[in-house]
Amino acid sequence: MIPESFPCELVAWDHAVRLSRALAAEVKAADYRPDLVIAIGRGGYVPARIVCDRLLLDTLTSIKIEHWGTAARKKEKAVVRYPLATDVGDLSVLIVDDVTDTGETLEHAVAYVEKEGAREVRTGVLQHKRTSSYDPDYYAEYLAGWRWVVYPWALHEDLVGFTEKVLADEGLTMAEIRAALARRYEIHANEDEVAEALADLLALGKAVEEEGDRYRQGHEWEGG
Amino acid sequence: MIPESFPCELVAWDHAVRLSRALAAEVKAADYRPDLVIAIGRGGYVPARIVCDRLLLDTLTSIKIEHWGTAARKKEKAVVRYPLATDVGDLSVLIVDDVTDTGETLEHAVAYVEKEGAREVRTGVLQHKRTSSYDPDYYAEYLAGWRWVVYPWALHEDLVGFTEKVLADEGLTMAEIRAALARRYEIHANEDEVAEALADLLALGKAVEEEGDRYRQGHEWEGG
Repeated sequence: MIPESFPCELVAWDHAVRLSRALAAEVKAADYRPDLVIAIGRGGYVPARIVCDRLLLDTLTSIKIEHWGTAARKKEKAVVRYPLATDVGDLSVLIVDDVTDTGETLEHAVAYVEKEGAREVRTGVLQHKRTSSYDPDYYAEYLAGWRWVVYPWALHEDLVGFTEKVLADEGLTMAEIRAALARRYEIHANEDEVAEALADLLALGKAVEEEGDRYRQGHEWEGG
Repeated sequence: MIPESFPCELVAWDHAVRLSRALAAEVKAADYRPDLVIAIGRGGYVPARIVCDRLLLDTLTSIKIEHWGTAARKKEKAVVRYPLATDVGDLSVLIVDDVTDTGETLEHAVAYVEKEGAREVRTGVLQHKRTSSYDPDYYAEYLAGWRWVVYPWALHEDLVGFTEKVLADEGLTMAEIRAALARRYEIHANEDEVAEALADLLALGKAVEEEGDRYRQGHEWEGG
């Protein structure tokens, strides 16, 4: 269950680019020159592409790691959804993701890439959270206080999710929805962005429009 | 051989994001809802990530296509360097790249993904050049006049390449290098960006610093 309220940080594009460049600078400062960069999908795609640019590396590939959990299990289980598409035998590798949250993703990725025979595996993220049980080799920023980070390449998806959370049985106006996003999640999104999230929620049947430009929770036919 | 002079367009981050969102809007307007998005490495990584955000798609993977040519062959040959990491059998697929230049990359990618058994394959790019022999299904912008497009995620690499081209046997100052980039390639890069490109060229032995803060072509030990 997602709690009723927690702090979020919206990262703007220019800040995400600065963090990505700072991550590349860390790797360079350590004199690590990987044979292969592996982006973890989907969050690592943009950071990894920028790191490759800054380090003049052409060899970029990706893997996708997903998490599965049940109500009975507190800790989710990481699984490789899309595996490596190339032989990493005897290569030095840099695995790139956006953030360490629990650290589970990177820990699983490292174990997987090592098992596949890489000679050396190092990891880099934009933001490393204190809550992570795994310490990446490189990061651009350390987050001592926990918060949910909304990266610009996930802004729409995250806004759809948060907007769904603030909708209630009684209709809310756009202004009330934006106020609730700010109060509960510290998300200050502009009206266009919230309108786009609402449009998708309406199309998905997760929101209903009422007269007076008010929106309330949709009750989907399936589930309950 | 790269010609002595040709027009370039530097795409800023905010414009690249706008183009990526416009591409997603095209796909949505056509009511195409792919089961899988395939980014072509490396240029398609950022556009594909943004398209997934806008279309609320979690299923993102990548392939890498490279081009090989010899002096004897005018047309380069496209080859799959990193293949698909997941079974596309019976899936509808959207292949995403940054630009169509000759069209060779997308044409080869489509043939490859179809051969792997995808049920439906469509393609999308940010910018579609008139020079392309392949027409993508979706694009955000049509480029009638040919120019080299420098995307923000390839800015450093491209600047390293263009700065190397403008260096000569006689030393040039930073101001002269920037003037040459503007005159020959219509590249208006700021001093920090050119300084970073020069730093890499110096480290690679492709540039030499002379007194008076002048830079000339490096003569590498290897090759000739």
